[in-house]
Amino acid sequence: MKKQRIGFQGALGAFSQEAVVQLLGDQVTVVPHPRFEDVFRALTRAKIDAAVIPIENTLAGSVHENYDHLLHFDVRIAAETNVRIIHNLIAPPGVGLKDIRKVYSHPVALNQCLRFFARHRRLESTPFYDTAGSVEMIMQEKAPDAAAIASSVAASIYGAHILERSIEDDRRNFTRFFLLYPSKRVRLPKREAKQWKTSLVFTTRNIPGALFRALSAFALRDLNMTKIESRPLHGKPWEYLFYLDFLDKEDDPKVQNALRHLAELADFMRVLGTYPKGN
Amino acid sequence: MKKQRIGFQGALGAFSQEAVVQLLGDQVTVVPHPRFEDVFRALTRAKIDAAVIPIENTLAGSVHENYDHLLHFDVRIAAETNVRIIHNLIAPPGVGLKDIRKVYSHPVALNQCLRFFARHRRLESTPFYDTAGSVEMIMQEKAPDAAAIASSVAASIYGAHILERSIEDDRRNFTRFFLLYPSKRVRLPKREAKQWKTSLVFTTRNIPGALFRALSAFALRDLNMTKIESRPLHGKPWEYLFYLDFLDKEDDPKVQNALRHLAELADFMRVLGTYPKGN
Repeated sequence: MKKQRIGFQGALGAFSQEAVVQLLGDQVTVVPHPRFEDVFRALTRAKIDAAVIPIENTLAGSVHENYDHLLHFDVRIAAETNVRIIHNLIAPPGVGLKDIRKVYSHPVALNQCLRFFARHRRLESTPFYDTAGSVEMIMQEKAPDAAAIASSVAASIYGAHILERSIEDDRRNFTRFFLLYPSKRVRLPKREAKQWKTSLVFTTRNIPGALFRALSAFALRDLNMTKIESRPLHGKPWEYLFYLDFLDKEDDPKVQNALRHLAELADFMRVLGTYPKGN
Repeated sequence: MKKQRIGFQGALGAFSQEAVVQLLGDQVTVVPHPRFEDVFRALTRAKIDAAVIPIENTLAGSVHENYDHLLHFDVRIAAETNVRIIHNLIAPPGVGLKDIRKVYSHPVALNQCLRFFARHRRLESTPFYDTAGSVEMIMQEKAPDAAAIASSVAASIYGAHILERSIEDDRRNFTRFFLLYPSKRVRLPKREAKQWKTSLVFTTRNIPGALFRALSAFALRDLNMTKIESRPLHGKPWEYLFYLDFLDKEDDPKVQNALRHLAELADFMRVLGTYPKGN
């Protein structure tokens, strides 16, 4: 049987690759892409079978760009998973902590290791486009005074050494990832799930109390909302799209009633997916 | 009388400087800072008298970093204004459109001029840390094949020429800015305003329907909510802070009742400011 091809953003060894393994195991082919938009485009053009993208981090917040792509590309969410983000100081073999001057990583990762940099004031925190990509770069350049901050998987993929493990300031650092399929080829997990989630996006009419009424469709049926995110509505300055996640499956009768109720109140509405609640 | 010193992020000629002029006129001293955090720190350490920061753009969405700073620094919002964002192609004198190969600007600005780049395929869109800063840079470097995308004010400050005006894809491109003072030295505008806005931040107890109940404090009193923004609550994975804007003044009796009602439901609540609704 042909292996599924799973796209993600970043270099090999990115945290998204850990999410791929958590979601689908390691019997898949991973396909790295430079930008999130490339991943969505590859998915809707059937260059890959599925995609795994980060949607929010417990410290940095939502990945807003991906909320926009969920609206603009015809995809469905089929699963979610949470990855514990552990940042490690990584250097080429033979390079020790005392040799290092520059430390490369994605700005969000650098910003999550501020106490490490405060303890080592001679280290220069240097932004790079990607966490795993910064490990690849220091290994290629063979710089004797450079290190990277990335996952332990990235260290092992590129043959680099971990000098210090878990240097992040806050260990309550998790990123939530979505598994996406093209809408027409969505494969729902076969396993039974204890709890399900449904994600949707909608716009309200621009009248007072509109969002409150929209949320009533869920609250009055005791559906538990777990996330709300707002994004600007293009072409209508100071109006917004709302993205909601709530517990329960799309085909549950209570959810069906809530969706019908929301459709009465919303100018636009689309269900983005229904999937087992993550770990 | 000593001129007020107003801090903002970016180089001289940044869109924030246009907001300063809209809010306070041109009889103030503007103080540029490299990062948003520097602006907030300068304000709370009394190195500047007030600050002007962008909070949301009608195309790119919220400036989430500034929402976080509004919570962490002891400041109050005293006014808001909306600036129409017009992007111009700017080059050193003597450099024409046919000479240009690289175009520098802030990534958000580059991303708002995609149709211009589609019309001129040989131009390389090149990210730089700041719009006005990219004009300063091409003037200093005297590169014969480089241009920048920035405001017309930036062109005039650095003595550069505008080769093409208003190259943004969507003219419904506005950025909303806040005028901030340290909480203890807030100066409210003396002028009468037709409409007022109030901004606040709160967290809910982690129970089903909590956000819906919180919003009821406003909706049941016919207070018109104009914006909601959520940010992650650090230390409590998958819980959120909510930032609300609604119409009406903090000392209005209806608003006072709503705030008392919200305080019953919220774990934490702080009013960030009450100010005349912007243009």
